[in-house]
Amino acid sequence: MNKPLAVLLALLAVPSVADEGMWLINDFPAQRVKEKYGSAPSADDLKRMQLGAVRLANGCSASFVGTNGLVMTNHHCMRPCLEQLSTGGRDLLSNAFLAKTPKDELRCPKDEANQLLAIEDVSARVLKAIAGVEGAELQKKLNAEKAAIESACAGDDPKKRCDVVTLFDGAVFHLYTYKRMQDVRLVFAPEFKMAAFGGDPDNFNFPRFGLDMAFVRIWDGDKPMASPDALQLTKDALKTGDVVYVVGHPGGTERQRTAAQLELQRDVALPWTLLRLAELRGRMDEWVRADKKREAVGGARLRTIENGLKALRGRRETLAGPGFLDERRKLDAALAQKDAKAKAALADIDAAMADARALWVDHKLYEGAEAFQSELFGLARVIVRLNDEIAKPNGERLSEYTDARRPALMQQLQSTAAIPLDFEQATLAWSLERWRNLKGADDPIVKQLLGTRPARDVAKELVTKTKLTDPKVRMAYASGARKLDALPLDPLIELARAIDPHARAVRKAWEDKVEAKETRAAEALAAARRAQAKGQAGQAPDATFSLRVSYGAIGGTKTAPDRTTIGGLLERAGPSHPFALAPTWAKAKPKLDGALPMNYSSTNDMIGGNSGSPLIDAKGRVVGLCFDGNLASLGGRFTYDPIENRAVSVASPAIHEALTKVYGADALAAELFAAR
Amino acid sequence: MNKPLAVLLALLAVPSVADEGMWLINDFPAQRVKEKYGSAPSADDLKRMQLGAVRLANGCSASFVGTNGLVMTNHHCMRPCLEQLSTGGRDLLSNAFLAKTPKDELRCPKDEANQLLAIEDVSARVLKAIAGVEGAELQKKLNAEKAAIESACAGDDPKKRCDVVTLFDGAVFHLYTYKRMQDVRLVFAPEFKMAAFGGDPDNFNFPRFGLDMAFVRIWDGDKPMASPDALQLTKDALKTGDVVYVVGHPGGTERQRTAAQLELQRDVALPWTLLRLAELRGRMDEWVRADKKREAVGGARLRTIENGLKALRGRRETLAGPGFLDERRKLDAALAQKDAKAKAALADIDAAMADARALWVDHKLYEGAEAFQSELFGLARVIVRLNDEIAKPNGERLSEYTDARRPALMQQLQSTAAIPLDFEQATLAWSLERWRNLKGADDPIVKQLLGTRPARDVAKELVTKTKLTDPKVRMAYASGARKLDALPLDPLIELARAIDPHARAVRKAWEDKVEAKETRAAEALAAARRAQAKGQAGQAPDATFSLRVSYGAIGGTKTAPDRTTIGGLLERAGPSHPFALAPTWAKAKPKLDGALPMNYSSTNDMIGGNSGSPLIDAKGRVVGLCFDGNLASLGGRFTYDPIENRAVSVASPAIHEALTKVYGADALAAELFAAR
Repeated sequence: MNKPLAVLLALLAVPSVADEGMWLINDFPAQRVKEKYGSAPSADDLKRMQLGAVRLANGCSASFVGTNGLVMTNHHCMRPCLEQLSTGGRDLLSNAFLAKTPKDELRCPKDEANQLLAIEDVSARVLKAIAGVEGAELQKKLNAEKAAIESACAGDDPKKRCDVVTLFDGAVFHLYTYKRMQDVRLVFAPEFKMAAFGGDPDNFNFPRFGLDMAFVRIWDGDKPMASPDALQLTKDALKTGDVVYVVGHPGGTERQRTAAQLELQRDVALPWTLLRLAELRGRMDEWVRADKKREAVGGARLRTIENGLKALRGRRETLAGPGFLDERRKLDAALAQKDAKAKAALADIDAAMADARALWVDHKLYEGAEAFQSELFGLARVIVRLNDEIAKPNGERLSEYTDARRPALMQQLQSTAAIPLDFEQATLAWSLERWRNLKGADDPIVKQLLGTRPARDVAKELVTKTKLTDPKVRMAYASGARKLDALPLDPLIELARAIDPHARAVRKAWEDKVEAKETRAAEALAAARRAQAKGQAGQAPDATFSLRVSYGAIGGTKTAPDRTTIGGLLERAGPSHPFALAPTWAKAKPKLDGALPMNYSSTNDMIGGNSGSPLIDAKGRVVGLCFDGNLASLGGRFTYDPIENRAVSVASPAIHEALTKVYGADALAAELFAAR
Repeated sequence: MNKPLAVLLALLAVPSVADEGMWLINDFPAQRVKEKYGSAPSADDLKRMQLGAVRLANGCSASFVGTNGLVMTNHHCMRPCLEQLSTGGRDLLSNAFLAKTPKDELRCPKDEANQLLAIEDVSARVLKAIAGVEGAELQKKLNAEKAAIESACAGDDPKKRCDVVTLFDGAVFHLYTYKRMQDVRLVFAPEFKMAAFGGDPDNFNFPRFGLDMAFVRIWDGDKPMASPDALQLTKDALKTGDVVYVVGHPGGTERQRTAAQLELQRDVALPWTLLRLAELRGRMDEWVRADKKREAVGGARLRTIENGLKALRGRRETLAGPGFLDERRKLDAALAQKDAKAKAALADIDAAMADARALWVDHKLYEGAEAFQSELFGLARVIVRLNDEIAKPNGERLSEYTDARRPALMQQLQSTAAIPLDFEQATLAWSLERWRNLKGADDPIVKQLLGTRPARDVAKELVTKTKLTDPKVRMAYASGARKLDALPLDPLIELARAIDPHARAVRKAWEDKVEAKETRAAEALAAARRAQAKGQAGQAPDATFSLRVSYGAIGGTKTAPDRTTIGGLLERAGPSHPFALAPTWAKAKPKLDGALPMNYSSTNDMIGGNSGSPLIDAKGRVVGLCFDGNLASLGGRFTYDPIENRAVSVASPAIHEALTKVYGADALAAELFAAR
């Protein structure tokens, strides 16, 4: 190819308008999409997407894909459930699971699914409630007003969940009403090694060959729930350039943040968490390896750590890239020059960030409970706080203890999932040790609660003596009717009580000095930006783990293709972890169609929380299952790079091929792919 | 105390002129010190300090403290030797060691000590040789000229070491002639737990209670070497405000670096190394814990990792502190405005830093050998490169393969110290795994040398099949007379050969595009700064692991005292690591004088490499043994904070008390403290 032509084609391959934005389902830029891709979803199509989408309370996305409550999501979204169900010789991570009949389906002890039924704009009411107040008072009034709206919406209906969603940095508030579904049962999951094929080296890379899928079913009483809104799967393969939509719940972006806020991320927040995860990854890998029995508990948790480490590493590298923050600083300065309120807001943020730096360590260690890392300590804290908060008026409680949030807390306390005690002991010991290393042995709180005693002994004593492993004991402590003091002392509850004043103090300082200022300033900045952008096309709000649609097209990058194939997977397979095939696949190999697409790469803008989102084509059919982004997408928290940022999905033809030719799940495949 | 007086006293406590600077022994600011402290060392005093000081080739400082070759340094400086000598049931880390007679002294298989005999200014010669050249050519000519000067100086004398030391960023070059002493024998070391009392939580904190000391003796043939230049210890305690000198070999500072260079540190270099160390710390801690036998090998290495992690963490936090780099950027801009050459130099550095970012990962993984972390791979590389380099003219070799450097390489290859194979295998496996995670399984070099094979299997094969554990085998390969191909294949040599083209390529790119530009630019910037500072007092050059003297006074900070006591140590002691007393101390407890100072805090400017430096009083007597800095000193690489930065030393009275009342080392104490 001659050079000018090649350059021209390369330019054509770059979308003319970047596919940036995780759009509100009730504010979708259909006109813009139609101009670029020739078609766009209608209002009805968007409504179908909304009702077909499912949010998992654990932070993932999903979708109804069968009319009997059948839900599709990622394997990694169901991994905690698979671990909790792996007891008594059953190992749902090493082996695939397929429920032959509905009654073989296994209930996930902690999962909750939500379907978004309605959206209402409550901005006027919320903004009125917080008009003219600042600082601590602002945060208090905001919390109280949100709690009141949510309570009025959910009432006493345990099947209803109401959230006031903050959009555009506090300029807009929407009330989202969800149907709450708490009986989630496992239908199918492949082996962990096939879901996470390629492990850490392949994670966030493309080419990628993951079968990161799982199917669950929502039950209603003694039968599967009816789900007439289910989306339809197709096994048609997509072509390069085909338009596709990702419908799901991106967790959070910070694309509107100021340079000072991003500087805090780059210099304080991300290094802090990265160093914690790096050490934890090393520890956990060796801990698991030291004893065969630990694999079941630690293996998948390790994988979560590795995933977080790689994701945050990419995020930090984006912020630390040459000139990235300088550019942002120039944008801030330009805004400040044109708008006096924006200028004041930027100064407020600078002050808030200085406070954030000063509060950082204690906020993480105490309110973030990083000094006591364990599920049991988390439960102890819920009990302690529940007893304190329940006595207060709803609007004055810590935001996660309002009436509207109570069902989720109760589900957590009542969960019958086994708590792996040796793992609890190990993480608690690590975190106590880290706490002492960070604060020094002369710190008064360290001195009071740990002193120079060996962290391992302390952790062992706490974990072996606590009775909080028993949900009945937890519920007794949490009843609220009785005072904690009337019940037998529990060492973990005592620890949680001892630390709570410190945790509450630093949380209050954080909310008053950092969050309240950021909220107010963000509002002013959002207004200034809207004023400047007058006449131009609107922008999507930052992601907030609420329903969004992003559009894009199947496409690769300068160095990577737009898909991999089943044949590519078989070729990549090696003798051992993380590249080993499960025996089911090794056996099925001769029957498989190697030409079928395995994973797709597409330009959709998405981020963590979108895991499990359906990939939907122009006809509204599910053509894939989003499970990852590429390396460039890791900076997606702060920016969208149209040249390199890509979403990665399991291709629907591979889902069909795996179910029918590898796992003998023909009935499930029929349920998914049958035309409706 | 009334408030104005308290404020006044607080102000008085802050030195009027900061005690900043690690000064050349032949350019000491005696006048400035005299003005501030009322006295200063004479030229003769400085000469005595020079000859009393000892440099350890492993990166530490030390001093002659007895006329029969007796040398004092830190326990942590001798730790590798203690590990190497811990064989056949002898455990020199768990137990203290005391040689009752000279013939009981144990030779350290790898240690080398140097005494600085003479300094000559060779700036004119070096600057002439590199006049008018740039880039790759500059680096080549510089290396060749330095090699020629060093060769001419050392000749064939194996007891002479000659180094051309680069000062003031390449504006000044001094030739340092050392006496090389390779027979270093262990005389005394306390238990590791007493040397490192307080472990990671106390490290870099003050109050501190470390007995971080060791004594070795230099032998000359079959008898202890005469060392008439030995310094004199005193057990007199120091008072607050007493002037003290630290004489030693600070490893490196970057106080003259530009904002762009420090930005690379903050954004790339430090996060890279911190994340590696954090993971390694977690791994190694668990690895050691998984098997009792591993403590001897891994325990002290773990401590080294923890020390590095904490030190670099502090370094990064200084650079990431609010406004730190902005200030530096303003200084750069001011210089650029006044000096056109400085402006061009700053632009060159910006370009060099962009290249450094691009080259970073490969430079670390391949030339830095981080992908193959193990002592055995290091030996394999020395063998491979020695065979290649020996054929070239001296001036054209890689800088560490010149004739002047050869004795050190040979000592490394000939060392009889045992190499712990299980540890080698573990670190090699970790680093191979990390390499694949960082570069991805599709990287061509990864594909060629590791592929999708399990890193642990590859590491096991390499470590069990190599014959490089045997010094005789290593010497046969390294003879240079024979070609490598004439000898049996060794898998580690093959690996080192396979990687060497990649390592050399990235090293060359680094030297040409980064180092050469930095050198030239630093020279221009140093000249511009000198021009601007005309008439003002001189500055000390950045540290370069060459002999320096820093001055200061015994003093605490706003929150910490200026000393701890033996009584404080006994009070802090707890039942277990890292706060447990050794049984020797528990037994001696009733006899000890709790009022004696244990560790001192002083304002001396120092940094890593100064470990083991004597602390010397106004009378030229050794009053302490420098082993650490406080947390604020960790940013000392980039800045000196007079309010908070403190050096930490073992007080000489504690040395005397420990030797005589705890360890029964009265003869050694007499040798040290006897008036001469």
